Amino acid sequence: MNQALVRELFDLIDVMPIVDVHTHVNWKTGTAANIGELLSYHYYTELTNSADFQGGEFPFDDPKELTRVILPKLDLIRNTVQYDWLMTISEELLNLDRAAWYAENWDMIYDHSVDVMSAPDWREEVIAQSNIVRVFLTNQYDDDLEGLDKSFYSPCLRTEPLILWVPDPIERKKLGDFLGRPIRTIEDFRAAIDKIFDKFVAHGMGYAAMSIPANFQTDHVLDEDAVALMEKMIAGNPLDFQDLRAWQAFAMNCVADACRKYGKPFHLMIGVDRDAYNQGVPSGTDLFNSVNSMRGYDYLFNTYWDVRFPTAVLSDTTGLELTASAWIRHNVYPSGHWWYSNQPTDIARELRRRLDVVPHNKSIGYFSDAYYLEFILPKFRMYKFELALALAERMERSLVHPNMALFTMDDALEVAEELLLDNPITILGIEGIEF
Amino acid sequence: MNQALVRELFDLIDVMPIVDVHTHVNWKTGTAANIGELLSYHYYTELTNSADFQGGEFPFDDPKELTRVILPKLDLIRNTVQYDWLMTISEELLNLDRAAWYAENWDMIYDHSVDVMSAPDWREEVIAQSNIVRVFLTNQYDDDLEGLDKSFYSPCLRTEPLILWVPDPIERKKLGDFLGRPIRTIEDFRAAIDKIFDKFVAHGMGYAAMSIPANFQTDHVLDEDAVALMEKMIAGNPLDFQDLRAWQAFAMNCVADACRKYGKPFHLMIGVDRDAYNQGVPSGTDLFNSVNSMRGYDYLFNTYWDVRFPTAVLSDTTGLELTASAWIRHNVYPSGHWWYSNQPTDIARELRRRLDVVPHNKSIGYFSDAYYLEFILPKFRMYKFELALALAERMERSLVHPNMALFTMDDALEVAEELLLDNPITILGIEGIEF
Amino acid sequence: MNQALVRELFDLIDVMPIVDVHTHVNWKTGTAANIGELLSYHYYTELTNSADFQGGEFPFDDPKELTRVILPKLDLIRNTVQYDWLMTISEELLNLDRAAWYAENWDMIYDHSVDVMSAPDWREEVIAQSNIVRVFLTNQYDDDLEGLDKSFYSPCLRTEPLILWVPDPIERKKLGDFLGRPIRTIEDFRAAIDKIFDKFVAHGMGYAAMSIPANFQTDHVLDEDAVALMEKMIAGNPLDFQDLRAWQAFAMNCVADACRKYGKPFHLMIGVDRDAYNQGVPSGTDLFNSVNSMRGYDYLFNTYWDVRFPTAVLSDTTGLELTASAWIRHNVYPSGHWWYSNQPTDIARELRRRLDVVPHNKSIGYFSDAYYLEFILPKFRMYKFELALALAERMERSLVHPNMALFTMDDALEVAEELLLDNPITILGIEGIEF
Repeated sequence: MNQALVRELFDLIDVMPIVDVHTHVNWKTGTAANIGELLSYHYYTELTNSADFQGGEFPFDDPKELTRVILPKLDLIRNTVQYDWLMTISEELLNLDRAAWYAENWDMIYDHSVDVMSAPDWREEVIAQSNIVRVFLTNQYDDDLEGLDKSFYSPCLRTEPLILWVPDPIERKKLGDFLGRPIRTIEDFRAAIDKIFDKFVAHGMGYAAMSIPANFQTDHVLDEDAVALMEKMIAGNPLDFQDLRAWQAFAMNCVADACRKYGKPFHLMIGVDRDAYNQGVPSGTDLFNSVNSMRGYDYLFNTYWDVRFPTAVLSDTTGLELTASAWIRHNVYPSGHWWYSNQPTDIARELRRRLDVVPHNKSIGYFSDAYYLEFILPKFRMYKFELALALAERMERSLVHPNMALFTMDDALEVAEELLLDNPITILGIEGIEF
Repeated sequence: MNQALVRELFDLIDVMPIVDVHTHVNWKTGTAANIGELLSYHYYTELTNSADFQGGEFPFDDPKELTRVILPKLDLIRNTVQYDWLMTISEELLNLDRAAWYAENWDMIYDHSVDVMSAPDWREEVIAQSNIVRVFLTNQYDDDLEGLDKSFYSPCLRTEPLILWVPDPIERKKLGDFLGRPIRTIEDFRAAIDKIFDKFVAHGMGYAAMSIPANFQTDHVLDEDAVALMEKMIAGNPLDFQDLRAWQAFAMNCVADACRKYGKPFHLMIGVDRDAYNQGVPSGTDLFNSVNSMRGYDYLFNTYWDVRFPTAVLSDTTGLELTASAWIRHNVYPSGHWWYSNQPTDIARELRRRLDVVPHNKSIGYFSDAYYLEFILPKFRMYKFELALALAERMERSLVHPNMALFTMDDALEVAEELLLDNPITILGIEGIEF
Repeated sequence: MNQALVRELFDLIDVMPIVDVHTHVNWKTGTAANIGELLSYHYYTELTNSADFQGGEFPFDDPKELTRVILPKLDLIRNTVQYDWLMTISEELLNLDRAAWYAENWDMIYDHSVDVMSAPDWREEVIAQSNIVRVFLTNQYDDDLEGLDKSFYSPCLRTEPLILWVPDPIERKKLGDFLGRPIRTIEDFRAAIDKIFDKFVAHGMGYAAMSIPANFQTDHVLDEDAVALMEKMIAGNPLDFQDLRAWQAFAMNCVADACRKYGKPFHLMIGVDRDAYNQGVPSGTDLFNSVNSMRGYDYLFNTYWDVRFPTAVLSDTTGLELTASAWIRHNVYPSGHWWYSNQPTDIARELRRRLDVVPHNKSIGYFSDAYYLEFILPKFRMYKFELALALAERMERSLVHPNMALFTMDDALEVAEELLLDNPITILGIEGIEF
């Protein structure tokens, strides 16, 4: 590693403003109120639960108590990139040296965090210090979006309730409540989707999104078949595996129809296996499946050729499939590095593949997936460091590679700017950002 | 990266002559007539179609117009290794600086290319400058091979028409036309294969080859079952999935029987999913499947233990399976880095695996897959650079590794020569090459 | 590569004593009697059989003749890490320079090996020079364990005979012989397992272990269903695929019940496809399947939440699944780098993943899988070198990484000590080791 070059590149990339195209931030609060809330992030509860088992039970409703319980266990995960995220928050945002993080000091840290984070301008300070200019959200269709600042937040519609959950009578009733009449026909279903899109577009919708089970199959489904399935649901008859698969394919097509109609992208996050771990903490029970092919999306990508599909994959084994899809498909855009693949080893490999064979206007570099604004800075820094490393290697390669032109620092920064700013802005149609 | 060492190694490897064991070169022409023909290579049409969609439609029958359409889009793929291939052709073969490649200059580039490439000795010049000594071809069974220069070209029989397409009456009729009588029995089918092999062997046959769908299953099939399937075809009854699978397994065995009889290798290219992308350009519609195991080939490799199987895989997820197969199976030979895996990230990983655990007399380093002779030089250079990098790292490792002997520059060059020359020559039985 | 730093780190790691948590060593002999026995290790027979085919036949009952046959072929695998293991044995243990390894010298090497290895203290010398302090074994349930030195060897119960083979009447009879009465009910089966565990625990049992076929499915099985399956077996009726799957799931649960009862870990080795290669040497006929998910173990891990599962995977494609499992599951522990994944490329990737996201008290660094004590040293050195490399890179990264604290040499050595000593000792409950 050419450390001087990597650091120089990193520093130049680090000053670029952050457009974060996928988070779980609560727009009404944005930041956390204390370190206990930050420690409630599933990475810390799941890793400490894994390192020192306590039945997945944590006092989530008492942040101070949660801090008391978790903080002494953090030493068991001090090697992890997730611990490093926390330390960057501590040092950069909370002005607290990482040497302060020892078990006996938990109450001092908690109290200090309350002091700092309860400042009235805490949210603005985090945003300013992190240089965040746009944050995409994850929203349920019935989320309250009134008062959301469209110039900073872009609400994104989570579509699992529409695509996966409608066969559940409770979920169907909830959707009917939103629509204003029960969901009894596929027309009702489509009307509900339209009403949802209307609402989201009015609030500056970013895109529709879905985290999708491994081995999902998109497919053509006739309206008459969907009608029969809806009638089965209404009659209270259970759907079998084939029925469910058909309904889900139909519902996904309805969402894609709406994306087309409203001119919005459909952001796919492919490959999760939910509820795999029984003793896990909340949000810490899901894994993924290495046996998963993107062939299940051929129908969707082909049929909705005029819809943009930014796509993230959970399994390393789908990484080259995503790269190849973005290489030849005009409407598939690799987007970030998701969850279990969001660590240096797999970021490094996928980044290099995308840099080498995907047109440079097509990759969205990174998203944080953060639950609080505080996590955006350290997570982006993790990515930006891997990016600096990859670009430094490309610069060095270009000096001796028989096919390459000289790849300069300026070229490297141009690539970084595309991945971090130009491409997300263009692909997702973000307005109003200047840098 | 030890740049000086890598470059020194590359330069020494680069002077080695090229034996290219898999191409799609047209032996009657060899080279292209102008830059438009080079730009019709699917990498350029598919990547620009992906970067700036235009429905997969390009003016393929008008090379000048194709140049006008594609050349301005090339800037969108300037980051790709495929763009770098083109630039090496431009600078090394066309004597045209890469700075000349800007949109407004498209007609100058086209005209210049016609000037240079229409020279009567263009083909010989490309061959001499690239130092190509042998080129394997991809041929249909009914290709005209009369006049082919066996000392330079080795025709290779593409067997999809035999193994996959015979159930199609049009394809079956075509095969019957070649045989001189309709294909109505499995004896007819075997006779056709024999006649094809006779023809190819007379023209210096390299090997039989097949690009194989993901999850293909080889298997034992009784003659009586094949007879029943053939009768079904002749009667015009459709074959179901199991029928098709059985027929394909039978037909592959027939081809392997012929390989055995004629002493020719069977080159497998495993894992393609054809026609996945509807809006793609010609040859730009295929992808691959990460869910694919080489277990489907156990029957073939075991039964035809006396046939050599050079094997390439399309998916990164099959890379270690191929390495492990070559490690223990005497008749499986890793061959090159194919298509979507033919880029630096995946070449680097597979190359290191093969160098570390496959006997050094068993790996065929690289093939270009080129459609025109012009592409052989830049593609081999891409590989040779990754090879130089891997060998330089091995040299450096050996200085401090507790188990390794000193791995010298001479040792490195010996490995390179085996991968690039000795192994393909020995494994494929190539005659008449001196270097 | 910072060669000086890597070597300095390696040297400091190399002096750490070896706890080897999985081998196939025969405790009654431990070491080999001559070089022929070392060459009978399947790596040498399979690699030379692959490089220079001779039908998988070797004179295994005549070590001198085996040496004569294999030694001249070793030059064909001189590039492999397996050859390097042999050279380290030669130079470090046999005091024989690697330059002596040429074909004509085979009898001198053989004779020299007999001289050295027949010394009465050869075993102690190998142990002392390799600094081995504990060796886990692989034992059949009916192995003679009388006289085994519990302070050095930990017998581990291989459970394939219990989980996979009971439907075979011969195997069932053998198990009944061990129990002292025929296996005719599931109570008999459970009693046999108990008797086996009693025996092993009395001899310092390490753990129960199983090398598991690709795509094995763990599951809940009702006793009444198992009873029906047992009755089918006793009646001599064949079990179909579903029956077999149910029986195997039931039997695995019985073994896990015993692990729970006796407080012993269950070491899983996931993903082998046995008997794939017909012309292979003994132990050289198995491959693996890249299509294999750890989802098949969800039931086992969840139900036996109080049993520890050290886990190794054979396929590279399962590597990130294992990392993710260890990241969130409290009772899954990544263990070493197995067989086809036990080479530098795949060790390097998995090591980095585990270092970055698995709590540092959860990974078992390495096991040798050795058949003779002589192989432990070179195999551990191969791993320790990759570890030194990864730790050196982490040190260098930490100097410029925006999220990381300085990662010092001491930090690096602490990580190494955990992987190599603290974690195996703690996770496997090894007693009596001081270092």
